[in-house]
Amino acid sequence: MTTNFPNRKSLSPKQIESGDVFAPKFDIAGLIMAIASDVSSNEILMVAYMNEEALKLTLQSGIVHYYSRSRSALWKKGETSGEMQKLIEMRTDCDQDVLLLKVEQVGRGADSHTGRKSCFYRQITSENGSILLKTDKEPRVFDPGEVYKK
Amino acid sequence: MTTNFPNRKSLSPKQIESGDVFAPKFDIAGLIMAIASDVSSNEILMVAYMNEEALKLTLQSGIVHYYSRSRSALWKKGETSGEMQKLIEMRTDCDQDVLLLKVEQVGRGADSHTGRKSCFYRQITSENGSILLKTDKEPRVFDPGEVYKK
Repeated sequence: MTTNFPNRKSLSPKQIESGDVFAPKFDIAGLIMAIASDVSSNEILMVAYMNEEALKLTLQSGIVHYYSRSRSALWKKGETSGEMQKLIEMRTDCDQDVLLLKVEQVGRGADSHTGRKSCFYRQITSENGSILLKTDKEPRVFDPGEVYKK
Repeated sequence: MTTNFPNRKSLSPKQIESGDVFAPKFDIAGLIMAIASDVSSNEILMVAYMNEEALKLTLQSGIVHYYSRSRSALWKKGETSGEMQKLIEMRTDCDQDVLLLKVEQVGRGADSHTGRKSCFYRQITSENGSILLKTDKEPRVFDPGEVYKK
């Protein structure tokens, strides 16, 4: 895929919202948000960002690539941990500023760098008037200390 | 709930990632991203933002409130359309900068202002080397022209 994504300025709001032209809206940092969900359960696994290169590579290869904001670099998910994501389906929302990725997790099935299946492993609860986080009892899929050691 | 959320600067990265203190990270505009999913199907319905007030009102009332960036105002979802969201469960991710809302849709069951169930009604597909958007065939739940007329 050598073509660039179309210029959104050439499209009307109606075309962006109802048309068949994929014109993703990258923010001023050149990034678009991507939500990865498990294609079987629909559970949300993680939220990350893609730049144009990561989005193109994902569409070309079928393997999810993000852009790491902390490392300022292209990030092929799972390159270190083996926990790659196979893209099954990609969707976008009304104004095309969010991508929804339906993925199949390759490897042990962990999406969080903490070794858990999903990054959303804590529930916000209210106890005696206090707001607290309650961590899921589900065990980790891997030990991050072991996987990410240098 | 009169107390404010804790100052994240007083917490270690480990406390933020593994602790039981809810310390949501609002961005420089004072907003945090919230992803609403259907509690029954886990399907993602929409992505929006909350400011501190919207988050507190949501936790207090159990009815989802957002902050509308386009209107720069508190936004009680469904106030105009009747399509309110009842909060069943709220989760946050590793660094507490995203909220995941599991909601029960009140009303006709439409979350998109286009009258569709979800904002993610278009799939990104590849046809003869071109990237296109394919709109789901599922009919709209309501006619937006009818619902939002003044």
